[in-house]
Amino acid sequence: MSIPTIKWIKGKIRFIDQTRLPLELRYIYCKDINTLYEAIKTMKIRGAPALGIAAAFGVVLGVENSKAKNFKDFMKQLNRVIKYLGSSRPTAVNLFSALERMRETVRQSQKLPVKKIKNILLKEAIKIFEQDRVMCRRLSQYGSRLIKNKDKILTICNAGALATSDYGTALGVIFRAKEEGKNIKVYASETRPLLQGARLTTWELKRENIDVTLICDNMAASLMKQRRIDKIFVGADRIASNGDTANKIGTYSLAVLAKYHNIPFYVVAPSSSFDLNLSDGEKIPIEQRDQKEVLEILGKRIAAKGIKAYNPAFDVTVHNLISAIITEFGIIRPPYKTNIKKKFKLV
Amino acid sequence: MSIPTIKWIKGKIRFIDQTRLPLELRYIYCKDINTLYEAIKTMKIRGAPALGIAAAFGVVLGVENSKAKNFKDFMKQLNRVIKYLGSSRPTAVNLFSALERMRETVRQSQKLPVKKIKNILLKEAIKIFEQDRVMCRRLSQYGSRLIKNKDKILTICNAGALATSDYGTALGVIFRAKEEGKNIKVYASETRPLLQGARLTTWELKRENIDVTLICDNMAASLMKQRRIDKIFVGADRIASNGDTANKIGTYSLAVLAKYHNIPFYVVAPSSSFDLNLSDGEKIPIEQRDQKEVLEILGKRIAAKGIKAYNPAFDVTVHNLISAIITEFGIIRPPYKTNIKKKFKLV
Repeated sequence: MSIPTIKWIKGKIRFIDQTRLPLELRYIYCKDINTLYEAIKTMKIRGAPALGIAAAFGVVLGVENSKAKNFKDFMKQLNRVIKYLGSSRPTAVNLFSALERMRETVRQSQKLPVKKIKNILLKEAIKIFEQDRVMCRRLSQYGSRLIKNKDKILTICNAGALATSDYGTALGVIFRAKEEGKNIKVYASETRPLLQGARLTTWELKRENIDVTLICDNMAASLMKQRRIDKIFVGADRIASNGDTANKIGTYSLAVLAKYHNIPFYVVAPSSSFDLNLSDGEKIPIEQRDQKEVLEILGKRIAAKGIKAYNPAFDVTVHNLISAIITEFGIIRPPYKTNIKKKFKLV
Repeated sequence: MSIPTIKWIKGKIRFIDQTRLPLELRYIYCKDINTLYEAIKTMKIRGAPALGIAAAFGVVLGVENSKAKNFKDFMKQLNRVIKYLGSSRPTAVNLFSALERMRETVRQSQKLPVKKIKNILLKEAIKIFEQDRVMCRRLSQYGSRLIKNKDKILTICNAGALATSDYGTALGVIFRAKEEGKNIKVYASETRPLLQGARLTTWELKRENIDVTLICDNMAASLMKQRRIDKIFVGADRIASNGDTANKIGTYSLAVLAKYHNIPFYVVAPSSSFDLNLSDGEKIPIEQRDQKEVLEILGKRIAAKGIKAYNPAFDVTVHNLISAIITEFGIIRPPYKTNIKKKFKLV
């Protein structure tokens, strides 16, 4: 299984316009960073790992026409590009770590001619893409160990191929379980306001012939009470060093409900989604998006004129609600503060 | 404050078509029970108390052209009408208790001529309507005692004027608090799939100049964590004798989240919403509605073809999650099994 969410093709970024799914599978070829910025902002590309990849390729596009004659001028331009791309969305850390990695790559090449540095940048972006492909498959193998035959799994938003290079994190685990012959049933929470669960997750699961049922976000608790959910798997946009996890709005709600109903709650994310500089989730910046996304659905107004709406894109799930975090280095269990460091060989 | 949700006007039931709100305020005049049945089924009229009133007037319409010459024939016809109206929606008990009350009225009039019985039936339906008006205002007075100045209140679905004769239960409490000069802020949970919170509750609150913010259902937990919700008030479709409460899907979810965050969770309902024949909530029949309501929003498809959906209209909140139940007889606190009986003077 593989979906070509985002690719570098002959000097262009080609990506799937996720706002048009599932009704239409349309590719956008992008040659400039303004188009890319807009695509990130409007969530044509979304999902933390995919944003990291997009940002890396974006840096390549942003400096490829640079006429800088020396390193200093090139670096100036690079910093402008990185600042611009970094201002697109604030929460997913992958975006920033990919941008930093690109900056560092240039720094380490300062003795080389500008043309050569541009080549190295492209290679680094492709490396970020390739590493994501490997990470997703590896963490999915680990995660699948937690899934038993006949498990009924709940997920929210889309942590699938469309959120990564081409395979997925939380959905990657499900794809892997299916590949291993496990028979599973998935409930996809629709994920208001932008309905990534309804539009993207059900689409991905159906492509793989996985039994999927769509629910509204407010139905999850009722299913849990009826013991119709065995496990919950979600992705992550940023994980602090104590395990606190920012993910799509509604994730925290599921985690509390899971705790109450004694259902294991798993976060699935590559190491690139960890922000070990942050002590806890309170420090993760939460993007507030346009009220219109709540007040309208697919362009149709649902509330009276003059009504205001609250629209945070993410919430933070406190680490004590998380049963385990699944990474490409293996499964991390509490206590997270120590075990995350250990797993990443930082102690 | 008063909204003419449903009224008997010159031999017709006049009601607001709630599927068209908030974009259009349209009245439907209904002269036959097939139109009424369809209006209940498609939720042009909805809300437990309003359904009771609609059913009572429906009985009047259903037998007014009866050519029955004797009581037995009339009763036969009446039973057919009651059975038909009772098959429209299964969960709200008000519908059934109103129908039973109409049947009992006829039974007690069996010595009277058919024409006279028809008059008595209309009087009884109007009495049900008038009693609802009184009950809503009385329970709102009790409920308002629980609201302090500057409280931030969360509600789900619509338990307002549109769910009752003209004033509301959970929203009635809020209207009353406002009338008493309390300054409050309300968060309305949009209530997927049919968006009664977004469409109806915000509309009612705005009419009364009450500060209201619309949220998606999956955002409530995040607000609770930020201590931005002081109290939760919800309506009820059926309350069992132990306090277990069926209400709009998503209510149970809020109750669990409220428990976790130590936020008082109040159910507001007239005595007509109690079903004391049921020992507990497990026995309340839960209506399963068409998958289309989840798979489409306002007529637009949100999931890929061939995707299935789960669509229960209600969930059951277990009594231990409920801080108090507010009725026209006063506020009932746990233990509910004893205190409900006491309040209703059954012991």
